[in-house]
Amino acid sequence: MKASIPLTNRKRVVIIGGGFGGIKLAKSLRKSPFQVVLLDKNNFHTFQPLLYQVATGGLEPDSVAFPLRKIFRGQDNFVFRIAEVHHISAEAKEIDTSIGCIDYDYLVLATGSASHFFGMDQVEKHSFGLKDVAEAVDLRSLVLQNFERALLEKDPEVRSRLMQFVVVGGGPTGVEMAGALAELKRHVLPNDYPELDLRQMEVHLIEAGPQVLGAMSEQSQKNGKKALEKMGVHLWMNTFVEDYDGEKVKTKDGPIFETYVVLWAAGIKGSVPSGIEAEHVGPGYRIRVDSFNSVVGLTDVYALGDVAYMETEPYPKGHPQVAPVAIQQAANLAKNLIAAEKSKQTKPFSYFDKGSMATVGRNKAVVDFKGFHLKGIFAWLAWMFVHLLFLIGFRNKLIVLMNWVYSYFTYDKGSRIIIRPFYRTRYKKPKMDLELKK
Amino acid sequence: MKASIPLTNRKRVVIIGGGFGGIKLAKSLRKSPFQVVLLDKNNFHTFQPLLYQVATGGLEPDSVAFPLRKIFRGQDNFVFRIAEVHHISAEAKEIDTSIGCIDYDYLVLATGSASHFFGMDQVEKHSFGLKDVAEAVDLRSLVLQNFERALLEKDPEVRSRLMQFVVVGGGPTGVEMAGALAELKRHVLPNDYPELDLRQMEVHLIEAGPQVLGAMSEQSQKNGKKALEKMGVHLWMNTFVEDYDGEKVKTKDGPIFETYVVLWAAGIKGSVPSGIEAEHVGPGYRIRVDSFNSVVGLTDVYALGDVAYMETEPYPKGHPQVAPVAIQQAANLAKNLIAAEKSKQTKPFSYFDKGSMATVGRNKAVVDFKGFHLKGIFAWLAWMFVHLLFLIGFRNKLIVLMNWVYSYFTYDKGSRIIIRPFYRTRYKKPKMDLELKK
Repeated sequence: MKASIPLTNRKRVVIIGGGFGGIKLAKSLRKSPFQVVLLDKNNFHTFQPLLYQVATGGLEPDSVAFPLRKIFRGQDNFVFRIAEVHHISAEAKEIDTSIGCIDYDYLVLATGSASHFFGMDQVEKHSFGLKDVAEAVDLRSLVLQNFERALLEKDPEVRSRLMQFVVVGGGPTGVEMAGALAELKRHVLPNDYPELDLRQMEVHLIEAGPQVLGAMSEQSQKNGKKALEKMGVHLWMNTFVEDYDGEKVKTKDGPIFETYVVLWAAGIKGSVPSGIEAEHVGPGYRIRVDSFNSVVGLTDVYALGDVAYMETEPYPKGHPQVAPVAIQQAANLAKNLIAAEKSKQTKPFSYFDKGSMATVGRNKAVVDFKGFHLKGIFAWLAWMFVHLLFLIGFRNKLIVLMNWVYSYFTYDKGSRIIIRPFYRTRYKKPKMDLELKK
Repeated sequence: MKASIPLTNRKRVVIIGGGFGGIKLAKSLRKSPFQVVLLDKNNFHTFQPLLYQVATGGLEPDSVAFPLRKIFRGQDNFVFRIAEVHHISAEAKEIDTSIGCIDYDYLVLATGSASHFFGMDQVEKHSFGLKDVAEAVDLRSLVLQNFERALLEKDPEVRSRLMQFVVVGGGPTGVEMAGALAELKRHVLPNDYPELDLRQMEVHLIEAGPQVLGAMSEQSQKNGKKALEKMGVHLWMNTFVEDYDGEKVKTKDGPIFETYVVLWAAGIKGSVPSGIEAEHVGPGYRIRVDSFNSVVGLTDVYALGDVAYMETEPYPKGHPQVAPVAIQQAANLAKNLIAAEKSKQTKPFSYFDKGSMATVGRNKAVVDFKGFHLKGIFAWLAWMFVHLLFLIGFRNKLIVLMNWVYSYFTYDKGSRIIIRPFYRTRYKKPKMDLELKK
């Protein structure tokens, strides 16, 4: 049956996904002749770049999530629905969803990306990604539960294992997470757990390549590495993770890490909806699009952002999967959709690279910007400024800023409550919980 | 087996419950000769008086929860453990818990209270209380999910039912919740749901007695009633709820209310741990204590706050179940425990009544204080000031204040994300969910 969506005499653009790209597109179509229908499985936008701070107690979950409806207040041609997409029929121009069937004139896939485990099911089952709020809150709870459990543990080997943390992947997410865990060790946990010997806590960062921050400049790689080492993060370069059973991380020709917490930040893949066939999917499970973001081989279907794979110079292997690409593609696509409607000429996408950045800890970050390589406190301030800029909503900006100022002066991270009583639901059988000892 | 808790040559005071009373007691014993062991099933203190604002999107959950360990930083004689209490053996001076057996020299029950449904199992199963963070977040999600669902609903009767909200109980919690829902209707939801006719949304407040705020002065009752009516809350006085099956609220000799959301604020009962026998339990499931908070008939066991029932003049039926009673009893008990240890004289408890207050909406509150009856904006400011004062933690105070200032100027409530995908787990079979229509 048909989903309940107002019928108008406007052509309908359906956007799947309320991330950076989906929002920018829907906003840019504000004055367009289209009806804009945005679908997302949540009623909120998630600011993924700060999820690692939620996972380490620096921010409350609500401050990195923003209600989608609020963004589009007063936009008359806009309709939002919470829905899961089951199947897309490009021939019939229909989407089968959890709220019924939705037809479209133009379809835009802004479905983003998910953690990619390269077929390692055990690793997928036992490790965490950092892709949504629930996962970040679960990870925070798990980290803290390990310390609560360490207090109860009499076996020193198990106790030490409870204080081991492994981050896989040396990109910005992995670096930021490892740095934040190292800060917890230094400033927060010794106060909370005077009974424990926090020297036993170790943070390991494992990277398959020869360097952390492989996509950044050599200088930033070096500075990032130095900052991590100074904070006591153990770096394992050229190390491939092969397996993780919930207790032991096995690496190829490398050491075994005994830990209950693995954060997986070693790869992402495009979230391709059902109905988009293999012929349309390129490297990294991304949907092949031409330089107008039109899905190659389909009519009136577009893809943008993380899920889109566009082979253009100077990005023959697709654009980096970062917010600015999604936002710029969305802006360009909006113009093109409107132009096409008026039979005007459309423009191919060209990416304006605004540089890249990663933060390691207080006063420690690296920024590449047009040949400049910043580090230290200025890079750190730039990092915060840019993240506040992209964060949606005045109230969220204010709360995040306040948390940062608070943390800066107190060396504390305020949001340390354990909300989930036990481990996340993805686990079929929790390996251990606080009642195990009874 | 024994729980892992450091052994010292100090006498051990075990406190069960990290509410207002438990925290005050543990803090007051900072310089005492005791080892203080605090047990709670969460690692955080919950500021219950503001849970209704979490449930209506005004505050994020983290700002009304505070990590317990942080409160006791640097208190050397203090130990905290996350634990559920299974059984108390007062004879053996032992507590059986989820983390093992804990023995004590003195035991203090600060277990607080839970929603009381007077044996109406169906009502208990289908309605919400406002006793913990998870429940408040679930209620928030449910309220918003009803509106999302109303958008999909073609049957006007069902659609209207999705916009009915029933609050049972006209005490401060019920009044505050009803007022907050009325504010959502007025200022927030019309912007979020332009497709819906929000005039259909109704908030009903049902009270068994003849007046709202029955425990307050007549003047405040009248002012509270007037404020609620002005905000469009439907008041049903002298109305007894008899049953609620998840769709229909049945009342004795009164109307039937069709609604999917019932907040139950019509009664609480003491949370009496297993092992405290019926002979020690008085009216309202509260534990009978003498004027020194010592449980009548047991040795070295104390109870305070909501769970304690002390018959003294001028409170022959026990003290009101509010934070100031718990805090004052805790302070007195701490002094008495220390005094007894030094063979000094102990003092009976006497309650210093600081008055009572309830807020209805912006600029609308009522305050009774020593014969004075405030209403309007001054009462509202006083209410906010007192709540900020009692809220634990500088960061939480700041964030809550910021949210209030933000809401005041924007008429908005910022925290409207639906975190739980479907209804709370207490439901065995969700009656309806967003996928039902498929």
